[in-house]
Amino acid sequence: MNPAADPCPSLEPLLRPRSVAIIGASDDPTRIGGRPLRYMMEAGFAGAIYPVNPRRPRVQGLDAYPDIADVPGSVDFALLALPAAACVRAVEACAAKGVRAMVIFSSGFAEVGSEGRERQEQIGAIGRKAGMRIVGPNCLGLFNNAIGFFPTFTSLIDTGGFPLPGNVAIVSQSGAYGSHVFLLAHRRGIGINTWITTGNECDVQVSECLLQLALDDETEVIVAYAEGIRERDVLLEALAQARANRKPVVFMKVGRSSVGAQAASSHTAALTGADAVYDALFRQFGVHRARTTEELIDVAYACRRRIYPAGRRLGLVTLSGGVGVQMADAAEDYGLEVTPMPEDAQRELKQLLPYAAVRNPVDVTAQAFNDMSLVARNLEIMYERGGYDAIIAFFTGVAGSRYVAAQLRESLRRARERFPDQLVVLSIVAPEETVRLYEEEGYLIFEDPTRAVAAMASLMAFGRSFQESPRALPAFELGCEPLTEVPIGERAAKRLLAAAGIPMVEERLAATPEEAASAAKEVGFPVALKISSPDILHKTEIRGVVLDVRSADAARHEAEALLERARAGHPHARIEGVLVAPMIQGGIETILGVTRDSVFGPVVMFGLGGVFVEVLNDVTFRIAPFDGREAKRMIGEVKGRALLEGARGAPPADIDALACALVRLSEFAARHADAIESIDLNPFVVLSKGQGAVALDALIVPRASAGARPSAGR
Amino acid sequence: MNPAADPCPSLEPLLRPRSVAIIGASDDPTRIGGRPLRYMMEAGFAGAIYPVNPRRPRVQGLDAYPDIADVPGSVDFALLALPAAACVRAVEACAAKGVRAMVIFSSGFAEVGSEGRERQEQIGAIGRKAGMRIVGPNCLGLFNNAIGFFPTFTSLIDTGGFPLPGNVAIVSQSGAYGSHVFLLAHRRGIGINTWITTGNECDVQVSECLLQLALDDETEVIVAYAEGIRERDVLLEALAQARANRKPVVFMKVGRSSVGAQAASSHTAALTGADAVYDALFRQFGVHRARTTEELIDVAYACRRRIYPAGRRLGLVTLSGGVGVQMADAAEDYGLEVTPMPEDAQRELKQLLPYAAVRNPVDVTAQAFNDMSLVARNLEIMYERGGYDAIIAFFTGVAGSRYVAAQLRESLRRARERFPDQLVVLSIVAPEETVRLYEEEGYLIFEDPTRAVAAMASLMAFGRSFQESPRALPAFELGCEPLTEVPIGERAAKRLLAAAGIPMVEERLAATPEEAASAAKEVGFPVALKISSPDILHKTEIRGVVLDVRSADAARHEAEALLERARAGHPHARIEGVLVAPMIQGGIETILGVTRDSVFGPVVMFGLGGVFVEVLNDVTFRIAPFDGREAKRMIGEVKGRALLEGARGAPPADIDALACALVRLSEFAARHADAIESIDLNPFVVLSKGQGAVALDALIVPRASAGARPSAGR
Repeated sequence: MNPAADPCPSLEPLLRPRSVAIIGASDDPTRIGGRPLRYMMEAGFAGAIYPVNPRRPRVQGLDAYPDIADVPGSVDFALLALPAAACVRAVEACAAKGVRAMVIFSSGFAEVGSEGRERQEQIGAIGRKAGMRIVGPNCLGLFNNAIGFFPTFTSLIDTGGFPLPGNVAIVSQSGAYGSHVFLLAHRRGIGINTWITTGNECDVQVSECLLQLALDDETEVIVAYAEGIRERDVLLEALAQARANRKPVVFMKVGRSSVGAQAASSHTAALTGADAVYDALFRQFGVHRARTTEELIDVAYACRRRIYPAGRRLGLVTLSGGVGVQMADAAEDYGLEVTPMPEDAQRELKQLLPYAAVRNPVDVTAQAFNDMSLVARNLEIMYERGGYDAIIAFFTGVAGSRYVAAQLRESLRRARERFPDQLVVLSIVAPEETVRLYEEEGYLIFEDPTRAVAAMASLMAFGRSFQESPRALPAFELGCEPLTEVPIGERAAKRLLAAAGIPMVEERLAATPEEAASAAKEVGFPVALKISSPDILHKTEIRGVVLDVRSADAARHEAEALLERARAGHPHARIEGVLVAPMIQGGIETILGVTRDSVFGPVVMFGLGGVFVEVLNDVTFRIAPFDGREAKRMIGEVKGRALLEGARGAPPADIDALACALVRLSEFAARHADAIESIDLNPFVVLSKGQGAVALDALIVPRASAGARPSAGR
Repeated sequence: MNPAADPCPSLEPLLRPRSVAIIGASDDPTRIGGRPLRYMMEAGFAGAIYPVNPRRPRVQGLDAYPDIADVPGSVDFALLALPAAACVRAVEACAAKGVRAMVIFSSGFAEVGSEGRERQEQIGAIGRKAGMRIVGPNCLGLFNNAIGFFPTFTSLIDTGGFPLPGNVAIVSQSGAYGSHVFLLAHRRGIGINTWITTGNECDVQVSECLLQLALDDETEVIVAYAEGIRERDVLLEALAQARANRKPVVFMKVGRSSVGAQAASSHTAALTGADAVYDALFRQFGVHRARTTEELIDVAYACRRRIYPAGRRLGLVTLSGGVGVQMADAAEDYGLEVTPMPEDAQRELKQLLPYAAVRNPVDVTAQAFNDMSLVARNLEIMYERGGYDAIIAFFTGVAGSRYVAAQLRESLRRARERFPDQLVVLSIVAPEETVRLYEEEGYLIFEDPTRAVAAMASLMAFGRSFQESPRALPAFELGCEPLTEVPIGERAAKRLLAAAGIPMVEERLAATPEEAASAAKEVGFPVALKISSPDILHKTEIRGVVLDVRSADAARHEAEALLERARAGHPHARIEGVLVAPMIQGGIETILGVTRDSVFGPVVMFGLGGVFVEVLNDVTFRIAPFDGREAKRMIGEVKGRALLEGARGAPPADIDALACALVRLSEFAARHADAIESIDLNPFVVLSKGQGAVALDALIVPRASAGARPSAGR
């Protein structure tokens, strides 16, 4: 059974079962085996609940059964709250009973070493054989709020209360972190419907849950946490579906720093892809990667209006000039535009509020609050005439007191009703009940105005991503075409890449020094000479490249010396001769490359040459394959992009040709996914606009063992 | 009267008066003229209070006087709550009465245009003449919490209550922002003693307040907000004094972005120095520059224990592996070290908590909370053996419930008592009263663990700054030595800079092409040739520089052509001949420069050459003069520093020689502060370690009008 092929129906009994057995059910409602039962009864789960406990006839007031086999009816879903040692037998019993899905809380599996790992594999195998889906082990369970289904023992429901109704889903590999996010989101007033912690993932993985949620009508916003992903194709499909369905995905993928990555790998057994690859992936699919939990919650909260503008125009209102400046600074940091109000609207505002700054930020000053209708009218003019994608109004504690709040809400109502889809944040310092009242009027509330700016930037990024989302889902499949020649020398590599549509410098192979001289004359001086041999991959060691050769004599001379050095340095190498190529004048040196990620397969790298890549590590990545728009986004991401746009008085470079080469390279890499370890085009010279681009050198390293597909999944 | 000379006594009556007149006192305790009176009575101000109101015999139960002249005793301090038009007369009356300090709330001065500006200047002049210090106009006043002195009408005291006792001071140019910061700090449980809003600053400026607070025994932490500073010497003295007295300064200086700077300049009349100069200044004096208000409050809060470790070692405890990773990632971002626990301590922890990750982050998992003594013992081992400068323990909502909190506090107490100076943050989600209980035990409480990491990094930066603080306060005085030659040509510039101790390439002046050829032979090939003329500053226009000349013949030739181009291009220029210099081989090109800031005077710039400065704008600044340690910090700040440290297989560069040149340049610039507009040393080539460094070119642009000192203050 392959979850990638038809994953959706299979998770249905996991989230919407009609009957539930709790194996290890406890009469004590505070214990691990007691809490889920209590939660489900309190939340009014309508399905059948069968406590299984060999030592008690009744558990928390319900009839209990000594074994799952004794349960009278059919059981869709089973919950295991047993010691690890007892789990294998219980899973077998569930399979025998015809259970379709289960959650295993128990720890003591892959996370404790080889014995536990074996046990975990056993369980997974039983589930797969029976077609029974398993969440866990070593997890905190899940919930489906809409039907009161709470097979979880997280104590944070006791701390914070049952989730509010809503359409946000949370999926987390970690139970502790999933609970923390639940608590914070809940305290922020975010309504959560689905919550899943996948733990050790012996069967159901985060990716499959994401795909389920991306397709699920009851989910509108997805929050995810993962330490590592193992299912390339399922994840890519999930993210593409979420985008196509206009569902924001906010993702916490930990392990950015070296220490962080170490801690992540000690925490789970997940195979963690290199972090830059996750950055690439998230950019590619318009996912918001949160760096902090606070940011994760902020963005999820900001999605509550389900308004995702595709623009970048931000209107700012403040009663403190200083905060106006802080918001404007933050807007610039996040790439938003604090566009001025139209001139006539500025004049109107100035008549309304003579002491105000009216450009944008509009500083109404605290004085405006002596007459709330002025504040309201000011906002109305901004809604109507500003053309802003979002507006943030900083009113601090002045708007926070209950008395002012009531007056202000009343004043603001008319304008609000006329422009219900205008995204408006109030940045106020107020007690929670006041915050809730403003929220009911359709405002987003952020205490900190800078965080509000960041959140608005995220909504707009979602908006652009949704707008640009390809109509058809992109093809992510990786091919397995073998390379025609292995080992593969420079000439073969260039032939292959040229055939794939990547421009290569025109070279001639000269077998002798004499031939090199005449080839050089044909090519035109100055030329470059290079040793040509499938067996010499690192040319610098033998000075295998000679640049800027300016005459036929010099070409003959240098070619002779070059062949000699090659024979001396590599006595057993097959030497084909000397490659003669024109020196490319001008242009900007870039580097294009492909590396192979153990999870995501071929990944394309782009960077500028020289200090940019060597000192500043200024490179960016994408999962192959991708299209031209994605390639242009890559190019726009490097710090040195100004060079390509024509900095230092130079003409702008041929970015179209560069983007095209990146796309072709990504397609080539995807087609030969199994066969290639890495590719280097270094330097890849981008000439002036309209002049094209050309690779001066190319290296393809084939995979040592062209073995299993990286996308094989579980 | 010069506040820089002896500023401290003069602010005394402003903050600690024995008698206060309120001019425009209102009987309505909610009005601007009524609130301060009510606040002072409620807060129990012990001095005499004289309401002045011509229309009422009594105001809020106190005897009122028709005019300040009628007040029986002497008046130290007067508060003006009058319309702008009435202020000049009132200020005169105060001066006549012998008032020593006053606060003017009224708006309608420099912020509204030229008429208001005149009125403001009048008031300032009256004050200066009488030796009467004035805060405002257009401000929200100030308070001194310790003596119940509240001459302010901020409504946020009504919203949030009176400040808690404490030793934090807040100084803000903006009243609205100062009030906002007060409210947030207050809600965070920060005790505030002194709060001053300076408004239009007709007399007392933020800088002088900072100096007062830096010297004041009752102030331990200083929070500041400014849009622009006008008093260079006072500010530098204030920041140096604060550092010498181990008082952290947390500064919000707005106007980082282009839009932000525009908003700032429309908000006040303050002369805003270029933003990079403020960055330089704050780095130089160990000031924490906050980018957001949230960060400002976080850092001020974190100072509550008054512990400022000079190290960088961070211990992390978590019950969620994912949060452990997030904290570790953040630690790397902020330059902290997540050093592992010693091996034997790890073994001990593992025995205690077999399921835990024990390296650092220490992941105790939620299981540990089944036995609080384990959590306590774990922390104790980390205190005792970890050697951490700070520890952050993430316990989320698990430690947040009142019941768990009481148990946990009790368990943790013994370890805490043994290590009272260990800086410990608990990152918990808890109601405010629970937070306060933990704080009483000496913990810092941050809900968000990433923000806790950032705050710990700030405390450690303060610690290092305090440790490195020079014993004697540095000399900030700027000299006014004139340049010996104006206009100043390249040769004179090089002579001057060489005499100042900056290494210059050795050059010979050749009057004729023949002399150039023989000079070139002496210097050794290859050489560079340059036109020498005090009248030709931009050599590129006439191709005035020829590089890589390899023979005497070529030198003769090129010199002749060069002289011809110069004569043709600049027929009236005095042409001295051709400079012949050796080509410097290898080394790393950097740029050293000086610009003149209108407030801070000469500012030294440093950057790497080529794309670093041209494309990436990778430069850093310091206020001149400074010492070698500061120069090395500058060098460490540029993104391309790896190049100097020996990236790309190159040997490390002579950073000592570079630092020395920066110091000499800063001293030279300070000595000639009045005479120089800018200096460029470009390129300044840094050779390999031990080989020194050398400027290949130098340009000094003298000031058009060597007029007023930038440090003149008000």
